[in-house]
Amino acid sequence: MPYEFVKERTIEFSETDMAGIVHFANFFRWMESTEHAFFRSLGQTIHVNEGGRMQGWARVHASCDYREPVRYQDVVEVRLLVREKRPSALTYDFRFTKRENGGGREVARGTLTVVCVARGPGEEHMRPEPMPPAVAELVEVAPPEVLDPPGD
Amino acid sequence: MPYEFVKERTIEFSETDMAGIVHFANFFRWMESTEHAFFRSLGQTIHVNEGGRMQGWARVHASCDYREPVRYQDVVEVRLLVREKRPSALTYDFRFTKRENGGGREVARGTLTVVCVARGPGEEHMRPEPMPPAVAELVEVAPPEVLDPPGD
Amino acid sequence: MPYEFVKERTIEFSETDMAGIVHFANFFRWMESTEHAFFRSLGQTIHVNEGGRMQGWARVHASCDYREPVRYQDVVEVRLLVREKRPSALTYDFRFTKRENGGGREVARGTLTVVCVARGPGEEHMRPEPMPPAVAELVEVAPPEVLDPPGD
Amino acid sequence: MPYEFVKERTIEFSETDMAGIVHFANFFRWMESTEHAFFRSLGQTIHVNEGGRMQGWARVHASCDYREPVRYQDVVEVRLLVREKRPSALTYDFRFTKRENGGGREVARGTLTVVCVARGPGEEHMRPEPMPPAVAELVEVAPPEVLDPPGD
Repeated sequence: MPYEFVKERTIEFSETDMAGIVHFANFFRWMESTEHAFFRSLGQTIHVNEGGRMQGWARVHASCDYREPVRYQDVVEVRLLVREKRPSALTYDFRFTKRENGGGREVARGTLTVVCVARGPGEEHMRPEPMPPAVAELVEVAPPEVLDPPGD
Repeated sequence: MPYEFVKERTIEFSETDMAGIVHFANFFRWMESTEHAFFRSLGQTIHVNEGGRMQGWARVHASCDYREPVRYQDVVEVRLLVREKRPSALTYDFRFTKRENGGGREVARGTLTVVCVARGPGEEHMRPEPMPPAVAELVEVAPPEVLDPPGD
Repeated sequence: MPYEFVKERTIEFSETDMAGIVHFANFFRWMESTEHAFFRSLGQTIHVNEGGRMQGWARVHASCDYREPVRYQDVVEVRLLVREKRPSALTYDFRFTKRENGGGREVARGTLTVVCVARGPGEEHMRPEPMPPAVAELVEVAPPEVLDPPGD
Repeated sequence: MPYEFVKERTIEFSETDMAGIVHFANFFRWMESTEHAFFRSLGQTIHVNEGGRMQGWARVHASCDYREPVRYQDVVEVRLLVREKRPSALTYDFRFTKRENGGGREVARGTLTVVCVARGPGEEHMRPEPMPPAVAELVEVAPPEVLDPPGD
């Protein structure tokens, strides 16, 4: 469904820190990595550089709430949900679930708001612009009962 | 003053991405780095591992709002302010200012909430505990007019 | 075969730099990640922390030769070959191949030498020691014609 | 002297891994960071993007030998020496010294070979080219007794 995407990761040694757990900044890289895989699943790409014109998605807000630590070799499922869609912006929710014993435990939640930006050849700065029509058509907002399930 | 700390960075090449700007996850590393320098300035350390006992500060919430991109070799000032202090938790605000022409432009704002945690020798999990008395005595909450200046 | 392992990666946005290509230091993280997956494939783990005793594999030498750049969303195959095995040390060769048009182009080669180290409970420093018998039995050195094929 | 440059770092928490020491790949980022500061000290920049023309220094070889681990909050001095200079390439040696008790201990040595590359507007690939005249004039090769001191 074009409002949801799931990507799984096995935690790497270089993602841990001396506290023996994953360094918190890595969760933001994983959100982005899941967003990009979501775009690929729709046949789209997050960053276009053609004939000197560059179009991408600037990050304007990012947040994460951490419930439990994640460790080396843990398998973590990152689930993206589209929460909001505006002409030039998307907001995603992320749920991080650690696999264990056939089930899973939610270890963190995050959000990311991104704005479609572009610049022409020779221009120095990116400016917001409406998202590409293909993306606007494909991406849907998740239903309320998926975004905020009762009892969650 | 024990409610404020400023650390300056020159942006490194490895912190940029193919969009030609600093990758957004790095701002979280810089918040943490400034927090740790703040602790050092108070004669404290953020992570203690003595006789098998480990004490540290777990990150429970992190967020950042991005206003303008930052580029290779830009000089960025990261200013930490203590917003909240509870028995076992601290919340910091961060202001990121890019130096230019003798002045500066605010390029991002962030927050970080951390909880004092510890585990004894042989224990597997960290548990929250009251922060060390020395930290509790030294760290102050910033005055309201510093945290939220009029017209900000 | 216990002298070879292949792991595939899709390049992430956060691994690129402002030159539009993958930052060179990432190749070292990928070598390590492939080494660790090789260990997992043998039912072993690279880092053990039990009852206060820590055993791991210290990196003592790392090198990489870069032939061609790798870009965002490229699919890269990292192939590990065991070149040398001594009582407490292993040396690996790595070949990085970018997938394209059904075939592949070698984009880089690397080497990593690692030494088995351990420390007991309460000890501060790791000391070299013979590798665990299970690893010594399982890991083989690759045949010369695989390590250095004619015409390579 | 234009064949030598020294940059000091205080190790950050995010640079450590679960073994409690600095992750080995970071030494390569520090080599690069020191190279770039060396260029800045000469009034030069390592990466130029003007009017669609891009000029930089591709990494073609990198290596590091690790003698002792480095830990959180250690102060490490990274010393760059120019070992070789060819029309389009430079090779640097790096010595990493941990500060302690007023003196220092060498903890690692590295090398980096970089090639001057450029591409014109609209071109896709970088090609090697002679280094900029200003760099060629300023950068010198270190004397043999500095590169390979007796008894080293």
